[in-house]
Amino acid sequence: MMSQSLSIQKLLDEFERLPGIGPKSAQRIVYWLLNTSHSDAERLAQAIIEVKETVSFCPQCFNYAEGGLCAVCADTKRDNSILCVVSEPRDITAIEKTREFSGLYHVLGGAISPIDGVSPDDLTIKDLIGRLAGSEVKEVILATNTNVEGETTAVYLSKLIKPLGVKTTRLASGLPVGGDIEFADEVTLGRAIESRREL
Amino acid sequence: MMSQSLSIQKLLDEFERLPGIGPKSAQRIVYWLLNTSHSDAERLAQAIIEVKETVSFCPQCFNYAEGGLCAVCADTKRDNSILCVVSEPRDITAIEKTREFSGLYHVLGGAISPIDGVSPDDLTIKDLIGRLAGSEVKEVILATNTNVEGETTAVYLSKLIKPLGVKTTRLASGLPVGGDIEFADEVTLGRAIESRREL
Repeated sequence: MMSQSLSIQKLLDEFERLPGIGPKSAQRIVYWLLNTSHSDAERLAQAIIEVKETVSFCPQCFNYAEGGLCAVCADTKRDNSILCVVSEPRDITAIEKTREFSGLYHVLGGAISPIDGVSPDDLTIKDLIGRLAGSEVKEVILATNTNVEGETTAVYLSKLIKPLGVKTTRLASGLPVGGDIEFADEVTLGRAIESRREL
Repeated sequence: MMSQSLSIQKLLDEFERLPGIGPKSAQRIVYWLLNTSHSDAERLAQAIIEVKETVSFCPQCFNYAEGGLCAVCADTKRDNSILCVVSEPRDITAIEKTREFSGLYHVLGGAISPIDGVSPDDLTIKDLIGRLAGSEVKEVILATNTNVEGETTAVYLSKLIKPLGVKTTRLASGLPVGGDIEFADEVTLGRAIESRREL
């Protein structure tokens, strides 16, 4: 647009590239930034640069960390007899929010997907097996997604881990809490019936 | 959250402060930034800093500009006999998109609002009157919003401008194009009937 200054247009373009940000949202954010104080805008820019400079992967579980172990691995109060295997670091955030799990994690860095060319060797599976060998881990929760790739990965891992004498479990499938039976898809409802529990 | 690294949490907080960005969107953007290349993230940070450093107000119309006149005022092909008065620079963007207006603009920097403590002296009204005196401007379009503050400002300006022998006009009110009569609010529909035009 002719009426727009070059640096405003450049910032609009940068924001539009972010996930979930369309042209309208980008415009709203850019005008907000133009009206906000210099130091506010600089703090955002600085935080972006800082996150890229300081965040690396935890050498033990491959969660995001700032040099050395991640916050979970470094926490000596966590139960190191139970390990939760997830695809991505963001899954850890979701599980931590439940406050139901106090063990350690292992991030695979994806899920097995022949279509996308992701083989077991592209994931941190070797590191996981190395971690289990000679450790105190008694149970591994395979918390990969409940789609084809996640299920395939869980089955693959289960076959590798069971011979080590470690119990493997999978997150329960069923109706979402607060959900209507009427609106549940048939696969989920079928799984809920299959895994019904006694009251 | 204990499981989050400090710099990730800081960036999440910064993004959540932006308009229209909730915790979920902020998380999505931050994880995207963590996965993207170093240079991509830096370009966004740089664009934020640059916009704050280079963007100032046009000395003639108070639109955003990069030192000196804004893109509209600097464009010699624009019709300088017609002036469109708006509240904010973003209104210029909206009007430019219509490609229906080829004159110049004047940004008030808000609208008269006794409740919010905005008096005529807080706006660029004196600059507007100064601009009109001895200029070639034949018509001033008062394109403030159609809410109470915008209408008040338009009436106030109209009373100041008319004695200068300059025609003042207001944007038409009526049904939005593609809108259903059934769903129009009664004030808008009343205005549409009042301002009906002959076919």
